[in-house]
Amino acid sequence: MAKSTKTAITPTRAQDYPEWYQQVVKASDMAERSPVRGCMVIKPWGYALWENIVRVLDGMFKETGVKNAYFPLFIPLSFLEKEAAHVEGFAKECAVVTHHRLEKGADGGLVPAGALTEPLIVRPTSETIIGDSFSKWVSSYRDLPILINQWANVVRWEMRTRLFLRTTEFLWQEGHTAHASAQEAIERTQMMLDVYARLAEEYLAMPVIKGRKTAAERFPGAVDTLCIEAMMQDRKGLQAGTSHFLGQNFARASDIIFQSAQETEEYAWTTSWGSSTRLIGGLVMTHGDDDGIILPPKVASSHVVLMPITRKGGDKMDVMTFTESLANELKEKKYHNRQLEVEIDDRDIGGARGWEWIKKGIPLRVEIGPRDIAENSVFVARRDKGHQEKESLKRDYFVGTITNLLDEMQQNLFERALSFRKTHTVIIENRDDFYDFFTPQDMEKHEIHGGFALSGWCGAQECESKIKEDLSVTIRCIPFDDETPKGECICCRKPGDTRAVFAKAY
Amino acid sequence: MAKSTKTAITPTRAQDYPEWYQQVVKASDMAERSPVRGCMVIKPWGYALWENIVRVLDGMFKETGVKNAYFPLFIPLSFLEKEAAHVEGFAKECAVVTHHRLEKGADGGLVPAGALTEPLIVRPTSETIIGDSFSKWVSSYRDLPILINQWANVVRWEMRTRLFLRTTEFLWQEGHTAHASAQEAIERTQMMLDVYARLAEEYLAMPVIKGRKTAAERFPGAVDTLCIEAMMQDRKGLQAGTSHFLGQNFARASDIIFQSAQETEEYAWTTSWGSSTRLIGGLVMTHGDDDGIILPPKVASSHVVLMPITRKGGDKMDVMTFTESLANELKEKKYHNRQLEVEIDDRDIGGARGWEWIKKGIPLRVEIGPRDIAENSVFVARRDKGHQEKESLKRDYFVGTITNLLDEMQQNLFERALSFRKTHTVIIENRDDFYDFFTPQDMEKHEIHGGFALSGWCGAQECESKIKEDLSVTIRCIPFDDETPKGECICCRKPGDTRAVFAKAY
Repeated sequence: MAKSTKTAITPTRAQDYPEWYQQVVKASDMAERSPVRGCMVIKPWGYALWENIVRVLDGMFKETGVKNAYFPLFIPLSFLEKEAAHVEGFAKECAVVTHHRLEKGADGGLVPAGALTEPLIVRPTSETIIGDSFSKWVSSYRDLPILINQWANVVRWEMRTRLFLRTTEFLWQEGHTAHASAQEAIERTQMMLDVYARLAEEYLAMPVIKGRKTAAERFPGAVDTLCIEAMMQDRKGLQAGTSHFLGQNFARASDIIFQSAQETEEYAWTTSWGSSTRLIGGLVMTHGDDDGIILPPKVASSHVVLMPITRKGGDKMDVMTFTESLANELKEKKYHNRQLEVEIDDRDIGGARGWEWIKKGIPLRVEIGPRDIAENSVFVARRDKGHQEKESLKRDYFVGTITNLLDEMQQNLFERALSFRKTHTVIIENRDDFYDFFTPQDMEKHEIHGGFALSGWCGAQECESKIKEDLSVTIRCIPFDDETPKGECICCRKPGDTRAVFAKAY
Repeated sequence: MAKSTKTAITPTRAQDYPEWYQQVVKASDMAERSPVRGCMVIKPWGYALWENIVRVLDGMFKETGVKNAYFPLFIPLSFLEKEAAHVEGFAKECAVVTHHRLEKGADGGLVPAGALTEPLIVRPTSETIIGDSFSKWVSSYRDLPILINQWANVVRWEMRTRLFLRTTEFLWQEGHTAHASAQEAIERTQMMLDVYARLAEEYLAMPVIKGRKTAAERFPGAVDTLCIEAMMQDRKGLQAGTSHFLGQNFARASDIIFQSAQETEEYAWTTSWGSSTRLIGGLVMTHGDDDGIILPPKVASSHVVLMPITRKGGDKMDVMTFTESLANELKEKKYHNRQLEVEIDDRDIGGARGWEWIKKGIPLRVEIGPRDIAENSVFVARRDKGHQEKESLKRDYFVGTITNLLDEMQQNLFERALSFRKTHTVIIENRDDFYDFFTPQDMEKHEIHGGFALSGWCGAQECESKIKEDLSVTIRCIPFDDETPKGECICCRKPGDTRAVFAKAY
């Protein structure tokens, strides 16, 4: 069968990657812009994906002893001000509640009334309000550690937004822990980073580099920020999760004090760690192709769509009976702790039907026509293969091996993304090469720059700033398990003992 | 064994019910007040209960074809104004966002800056913002029905708050559906009410009366509001869930228009239905006793606590080994689609340990001492029995029958609550009797009024208002399956064809 060169998404990734992203999300039916500036509506197909991510991550948290709780949406302004670096970091992007009712104004329309004596901030993150609770919950070392997570919405006012990647309101989880020793808090920070890496690699099929942020890129108020960084198909980096060691900064700000085993009064050591609906944006940009998004089977909104093909004549009943019995059999099966989810799409809309499911990224599409039924077989297409690559499989063989098919697809997506990242990650020792690497030849044609550069860094913030100013390139992280020999600073040429991942980033 | 008259909660229910509620919630470690006016912190023990309620309810929604989605936290003021009755209903209790950043003020402190051209309301409910999406999603009758649910936080500014029962921010779900016919929308309204009744009765062990609200008590903007009403132990009513038939009111406000099969343009028929963390308050007040809360096993935060008793000497290892092996065996078992959750509490704090778990309302407490181990038995207490009623059971028998024990407790809680409601629900035909029924003899002693009165009502809002003004008694609902013969209006004596449930209420 000849391969069609038609693609479902215009423009393609190569033609205009940012616009491809907007179109591919729209075509997937996962989310849409709302009439509220910068806020999105997450539609059922996108929300089901998020629910699967939540379920997996929540299970991993609980395995490490974390318990869920819920804290107020609003933070009094005075709380935010308790930690200087923290408020500095968030002041420019806060939604501020100043009134608590509406009343008729002079022109008859409603206007804000009931001014608050202290404005309330819609939480951009909850360290300060959770710190206040922790200060009440802790009195002795016996009360520690406290291991809490919250699933919540947060608001950070954004001027330029993109669905999932950067929105004024987003959904996330934020973990907050308090410990009796620095060592224990540091271990927890690392443990939760490992959880994020497992989620990304084993479930989202998204390879990540684990590392540490530079001081300039740290969370406002943190002593140390660890992160996982992924490469998108435009070779930019995306931070997919962060885990912060907060030292005693927030304990001091919120008076989280405990009596130690030696009966001294000590500030607790705290951590926080978060991941958000941004992961969905990352997943789209890691796996999507010119026909739309591709959902990794382990977190896919649904696993398989059955599309009965009925022709004019008397066979419709047979085809539907066959389809429904197949659906029921499939739904009995489990795939990674979840029942297989099966859609039946019997709409009579021609080729548009198959294309819709391609654009929605469902892992498997199955066509069932009278001829297939006669042969007791089905016609199966895998979303990670070309859209015309379909295979006729005996019905029972398909039922018996569907979870293997899904596993193969999951594995293929991961390997493909890993190979892409490896191809576009380059050790660069020379400053000119570095500048060339990050300068696309033809900006007009939306040409893409090199990718990730592994280069030396002297540790000075000036060099980091210079690179950022010249190229919009930042240090994504100092990778943990880097075995590249150390070199000179890519900016100032001083000998450095740090090799960093430099990249343009979301 | 003599029964102790000591109770864990002061005051008792009989002494001062409202204060008992505050104390019992505090002692349960489920939630606490936050420094943000009217907002609560839901602690892990309370949040786990909510998670179980969410899981059950979410499953029931999905069985009826409902899908989850997520809509913005903020609603533009102009949206709220689209439906006149709706904005009227919520204007007095809205948190209003007027600014989107903070900047240094004259005195160096931070003040709101970046004034918004249109204020944003923190959602008190989402009919108007979801209606806007529906208007884009619907063009033909083929797009209908749309069946959506959202799990979210909402804000309704409250001056006097009580944990779980009435808080400025609360967690809830709100379902929103759109249909091509009034009939279908009405059926959906009823279907979701039935779901709420099933949750209440089968899972929360809380008997409810299903019925219809009067016009005065309807949701702002609804054509018809159905509800489930439960009786608390102070004989007041608590509305535990509502389901609204919105007619075409919100479709008109939001332009949800579809082309019918007859190719005419029609407004869709919509419904909405919600339940919230208020259910937890209802659960506390339905089952709690003078020793604390009692959690119905099917939704309990955890099912059983094992408390090893170690004495000075060398037996601690044996007791812990026995305890852990028992815990592992129990955790393998399932109870109503959920693994049994088992706590081990080996703290050496004397009698305080048992009391803590009583106050937390865990269904089963198990003591394990050297003598029990010698006899291969355990000492089991059920939370719905008196706190000194304990039973020695052979270990294997206990493991084999624990789910029966839990089921018996679940059943007992329901029957107890149903019998309480029946005892305090009285048919009253005479106005004087009615006024007596709702007038406690001795207010000073926190004496409790009669309960639910089943009385005639002529249908006039004046009579309803008069009763409310005189007695703070409202019509909770017109019950659906009432078989009581109709009588005169309890207020004006006109013959009425309606018998209503009158009660004081939360």
